[in-house]
Amino acid sequence: MTPIAQNKQENPALHFPALQPPRRYLFGPGPSMVHPRVYEALAKPIVGHLDPYFIQVMGDVQQLLKPAFGTSDGVTLVVSGTGSAGMEAAVANFVEPGTKLAVFANGYFSDRLTEMARRHGANVVRLEKLWGETYTEDEAREFIGREKPKVVAYVHAETSTGALQSGQAICAAAHDAGALVIADCVTSLGGVPVQFDQTGIDVSYSCTQKGLSCPPGLSPMAMSPRALDWLRARTSPVRSWYFDLKLIHDYAAVSHRYHHTAPISMFYALREALLVIAEEGIEKRWERHRHCHKLFVQGIEAMGLRMHVPEEHRIATLNTVCVPEGVDEAKVRKRLLDEPGIEIAGGFGPLAGKVFRIGVMGPLATEDNVQFFLKEFKKMLS
Amino acid sequence: MTPIAQNKQENPALHFPALQPPRRYLFGPGPSMVHPRVYEALAKPIVGHLDPYFIQVMGDVQQLLKPAFGTSDGVTLVVSGTGSAGMEAAVANFVEPGTKLAVFANGYFSDRLTEMARRHGANVVRLEKLWGETYTEDEAREFIGREKPKVVAYVHAETSTGALQSGQAICAAAHDAGALVIADCVTSLGGVPVQFDQTGIDVSYSCTQKGLSCPPGLSPMAMSPRALDWLRARTSPVRSWYFDLKLIHDYAAVSHRYHHTAPISMFYALREALLVIAEEGIEKRWERHRHCHKLFVQGIEAMGLRMHVPEEHRIATLNTVCVPEGVDEAKVRKRLLDEPGIEIAGGFGPLAGKVFRIGVMGPLATEDNVQFFLKEFKKMLS
Repeated sequence: MTPIAQNKQENPALHFPALQPPRRYLFGPGPSMVHPRVYEALAKPIVGHLDPYFIQVMGDVQQLLKPAFGTSDGVTLVVSGTGSAGMEAAVANFVEPGTKLAVFANGYFSDRLTEMARRHGANVVRLEKLWGETYTEDEAREFIGREKPKVVAYVHAETSTGALQSGQAICAAAHDAGALVIADCVTSLGGVPVQFDQTGIDVSYSCTQKGLSCPPGLSPMAMSPRALDWLRARTSPVRSWYFDLKLIHDYAAVSHRYHHTAPISMFYALREALLVIAEEGIEKRWERHRHCHKLFVQGIEAMGLRMHVPEEHRIATLNTVCVPEGVDEAKVRKRLLDEPGIEIAGGFGPLAGKVFRIGVMGPLATEDNVQFFLKEFKKMLS
Repeated sequence: MTPIAQNKQENPALHFPALQPPRRYLFGPGPSMVHPRVYEALAKPIVGHLDPYFIQVMGDVQQLLKPAFGTSDGVTLVVSGTGSAGMEAAVANFVEPGTKLAVFANGYFSDRLTEMARRHGANVVRLEKLWGETYTEDEAREFIGREKPKVVAYVHAETSTGALQSGQAICAAAHDAGALVIADCVTSLGGVPVQFDQTGIDVSYSCTQKGLSCPPGLSPMAMSPRALDWLRARTSPVRSWYFDLKLIHDYAAVSHRYHHTAPISMFYALREALLVIAEEGIEKRWERHRHCHKLFVQGIEAMGLRMHVPEEHRIATLNTVCVPEGVDEAKVRKRLLDEPGIEIAGGFGPLAGKVFRIGVMGPLATEDNVQFFLKEFKKMLS
């Protein structure tokens, strides 16, 4: 369409090679593999952000998110940023300067939550455990009963450790104390049950690039009726305008009045990813992930390797495998990437050099793909 | 790939029609039409956000942004949110609680800037003009000399009014007063010259869906060496973690240490959009927009209509046309959308019902497309 300059000296654009991403098998903690239909949706022609068609797309996404979160009473919406944007939206809207926030700390993302909450003026109190451990019902009750916070936060599926934290006792104790509960479901949504209503979560945020098998760029959220009331009753301005959930909710679901220009193509992609999930059936999808997780762990243990997290607290979609004595984990990861093109992640913080983080999600959660991965992984370890 | 349930009662997914966006000619203020190559880039398979290939893509984008901003000394980077996210990043990082911020107010986006800055604790002082007016050199000097602010903000191309504000005198006066300058270039980048270095801008943010002809979802930014020093010297924490430019810059351009999971597909798209621009040549592109703008205005005036902004202060890519007496502008817009599928926008705030906002950008900035638009527009007015 446009004339191309003939001479590289004259036109620096010609120094850039055409976009040709290498083929990767995304077995890391996310981004995960994307369904071909989702790529097709990304490439559909955009309409305006106030176009009746786009308003419909946003509405469809909100509806399709409900079974994934496991909510019928809750409100679902999407923040125009990545999972961390959803975390900041949750913190910014439900914390006011001086609000006492109780955090169940046991990994990197509870630390990030803490950091964000402090920046938004919260008085953060933390219960501390080692990375990979989880909290019992008694510990949850005791901590909340003692601290009497206004807001409680925990990470449902902790990407940095591979541990799944049940929210049942946390939510019950928090509600007894009159507190709201924020649950980080970045790694669980779409891959393992979130059970928003049944658990009693008030505010949850996630991402698109893990359990939903969609590229990164949006953060789906859910809010309970109690959270919505809290938001409406809030009188101090939220410190962030971009993440002001009252304004976003109004644009997305009520008046459709302009707030920001939503990332149209990403919404197309998310709608398609959610349709692919709905066609499979969310419960069948969870079961498929559980099944592949079991196969994966069997294979890992058959190699003589150990899992970092006790069996009953593992995330079905994200496995932390202990690095065996004498193995240079960075070298293993580099060879996996360079040779078969497999991406996995290492540990960081206290788990740096100690674990591999291996995701088995979405299109990769099949028996064949698990066997393919185990075979390649075994080669690199020997 | 996945079995589809046979019965609609059993499977709600089957109630959702396939994604089939209507064909639109995006003659609004943005999003604008997207080049087919950009859609192809969006659909390329993703890699991880720490993959060497993605780090290279981010680096290419940073380099390709420099001629569009008109900077050689400045640092360019991309915030993982829309244009308003870039605005919030600029405000959050360069305003501390109590910072005196001087705003040249003359439209909706200077009001949004004001609102954000107040939420981030700034002491905002404003010079006020009507929507569509601009500031003279004397007014700029007098205001800054009198107020002695620490930070100055103005909107280069005001989407709500169609007026272009020169930054030359504002930047000179601000630097004399030891202040930094934030320029909103959301509507100008890629379509009209920003001249970042030559104007003396310190911090600028934009979007992808206007002059860059890419879908919405990212906010390109530029910072002067002075702004970078200011950022490094800042001791109070930025109130937003997601928009903390020190952390984003470190991930994007220095250590490549994980900050957030960047929207990979959107970066692919932006890289391609910038390559398309570089192949045409940024100056030729500006000239093409100027040329089509002149044709557009000639056609509008030949219909007996008036432009809202005086000739010397118009944005070449976004036209505000006065609604003629007796015309129901909402009806005109609705018919344009429903019949030929043309999107344009109305005015809002003080300009509600008074102007049409018509963008002639990117692939639509050709003589044929201008004539096509004028013909359809004329039909709807008669």
